[in-house]
Amino acid sequence: MSGPARITIKDVAARAGVSKGAVSLAFNDKPGVSDATRERIFAAARDLGWAPNLAARSLSNARVDAIGLAVCRPARMLGLEPWYMEFISGIESVLAERSASLLLRLVPDLDEEVGQQARWWQSKQIAGSILVDFHGDDPRTTALPGLGLPAVAVGHPSLTAPFPSLWTDDATAVGEAVRYLAALGHRRIDRVGGAPDLGHTGIRAEAFTAALAGLGLPEGRQLATDFSGEEGARATRTLLTSADRPTAILYDNDLSAVAGLSVAAEMGLSVPTDVSLLAWDDSQLCTLTHPKLSAMSHDVHGFGAEVARALFELLETGSTESRPVPTPVLMPRGSTAPPPR
Amino acid sequence: MSGPARITIKDVAARAGVSKGAVSLAFNDKPGVSDATRERIFAAARDLGWAPNLAARSLSNARVDAIGLAVCRPARMLGLEPWYMEFISGIESVLAERSASLLLRLVPDLDEEVGQQARWWQSKQIAGSILVDFHGDDPRTTALPGLGLPAVAVGHPSLTAPFPSLWTDDATAVGEAVRYLAALGHRRIDRVGGAPDLGHTGIRAEAFTAALAGLGLPEGRQLATDFSGEEGARATRTLLTSADRPTAILYDNDLSAVAGLSVAAEMGLSVPTDVSLLAWDDSQLCTLTHPKLSAMSHDVHGFGAEVARALFELLETGSTESRPVPTPVLMPRGSTAPPPR
Repeated sequence: MSGPARITIKDVAARAGVSKGAVSLAFNDKPGVSDATRERIFAAARDLGWAPNLAARSLSNARVDAIGLAVCRPARMLGLEPWYMEFISGIESVLAERSASLLLRLVPDLDEEVGQQARWWQSKQIAGSILVDFHGDDPRTTALPGLGLPAVAVGHPSLTAPFPSLWTDDATAVGEAVRYLAALGHRRIDRVGGAPDLGHTGIRAEAFTAALAGLGLPEGRQLATDFSGEEGARATRTLLTSADRPTAILYDNDLSAVAGLSVAAEMGLSVPTDVSLLAWDDSQLCTLTHPKLSAMSHDVHGFGAEVARALFELLETGSTESRPVPTPVLMPRGSTAPPPR
Repeated sequence: MSGPARITIKDVAARAGVSKGAVSLAFNDKPGVSDATRERIFAAARDLGWAPNLAARSLSNARVDAIGLAVCRPARMLGLEPWYMEFISGIESVLAERSASLLLRLVPDLDEEVGQQARWWQSKQIAGSILVDFHGDDPRTTALPGLGLPAVAVGHPSLTAPFPSLWTDDATAVGEAVRYLAALGHRRIDRVGGAPDLGHTGIRAEAFTAALAGLGLPEGRQLATDFSGEEGARATRTLLTSADRPTAILYDNDLSAVAGLSVAAEMGLSVPTDVSLLAWDDSQLCTLTHPKLSAMSHDVHGFGAEVARALFELLETGSTESRPVPTPVLMPRGSTAPPPR
């Protein structure tokens, strides 16, 4: 079989103008190369798209049976946000099969995460990491590859390159959500979005604007939240008390949609008769409310498991393919209906 | 100030008939003492209630900035059970202040946990551990102390000795729950309990029987579940289809109570008019249902934080006091009322 010539450590050494041994020292974080040379080697590897043989490296670290996950969210949120818990439980389901552990840390910001990942890796506490919640111009995309840390990212490749990544096709799902609400007859559709610094929030916001424009509907208001129930309630209240009240609201997670349902009740508005609410994720929260929440539904536990399997593939074979996981699909329940006449 | 003479490494050495150096080797898991001697040293330390100076030890392992948590439950459950997620988020809130990480692993059984804790500790992956879900005759209480692993247990001291432990006073809370239902007029009260092999399930079962007997009420049926919604629904269906149907049911967690609410609706029974349901934990699930669930309420996030602080105290000072956390209190909502006449 023919194919592009495989890039080897020799090519990297040649491009950086150093020996193969120096490349190895740099990637294994050993002394013996200057910082400047190390930087040149990392740059050469990046240019060529080369990474050290992770399989060999991971075997030599056979003792390491943990993978890392740093989460840049407040602790309270971790316990309340069903997405995270189901995602982590999915990761654990795969780790359990392999008697491996998850090293979990909450970080205040992404720079702190970069430092933590480096310490975990250099002190051999982890064999690899799962990277989540990418921002635009995420510092991890430039700071981590040079470490040689095997990592799988969660997010669209436009945000996560050069890491191999798995992502949810948020743009397509937002389009489906908007078309469904429009098909019910809604023309005033607003959105309660998640944290604005997260890359996938931006992707959803653009897709929302584009979907409304594509249908010839008026531009919708989009309010940012931190995904909490409190801010979801506040945003819903703002939208429902505006002069130009929406007849349908699309949410970025379940928790804010549940909070929105309470706000509608508090304001004497009936769901779905007066206003339709559409949640996102479809955790068990959506079936506990009254009425049950319509939602964009996907298997978050399965997503976590798939990401963990991708990381093990990377550790064992040296590569894993970037790919989307199944796109969220509409699960209509009792919180969406045609708008009032 | 006077007090009992402090037990030192010298006392342990004298009782075991070895040198202080041998005690140190044994507790630091270094070669140089035979297995038989090591066992004798551990037995002497246990008899005297001595543990190595963890403060000194932990300082010498200053690099170790992770603590361990092994959970013997299915992965799916971890994502669905609010108790676990809030407990872990509480732990993380304290770890985050100290830039420390949680090493989390799901284990299939407690023997596997013993092996995992030993490997984590001996390979210096953790500075200490949080031990949860104690069984009667729990293998961890005999296998782990000899390792010298600093650990704080979650559970009543009758289950967790010799570890320092923090616990919820389940017996008192069950008594309060039963007295409340009896005060409403209920005489046929049943219980949907958690996993029967867990020690705290046994404590609650005994307290339930004792509380009913103390009030002169007929003995209640108690059904075991795995804490899942499925088994909570099945148990509720069994109770509500019995000839001698209860007018009130006490649950061991929120998830099974929520499932019980659906079963009542499916059977055409109105809550609370036909049957009262009382949940346990009072996570956000309880306020999302219709009617909202009455529950035995406690701060699970705060409990996790308190346990993590106790472990850090143990690491830093060499000891921490066993103590109960605040007892769950009744939070009456819409799912409890007097029984039908």
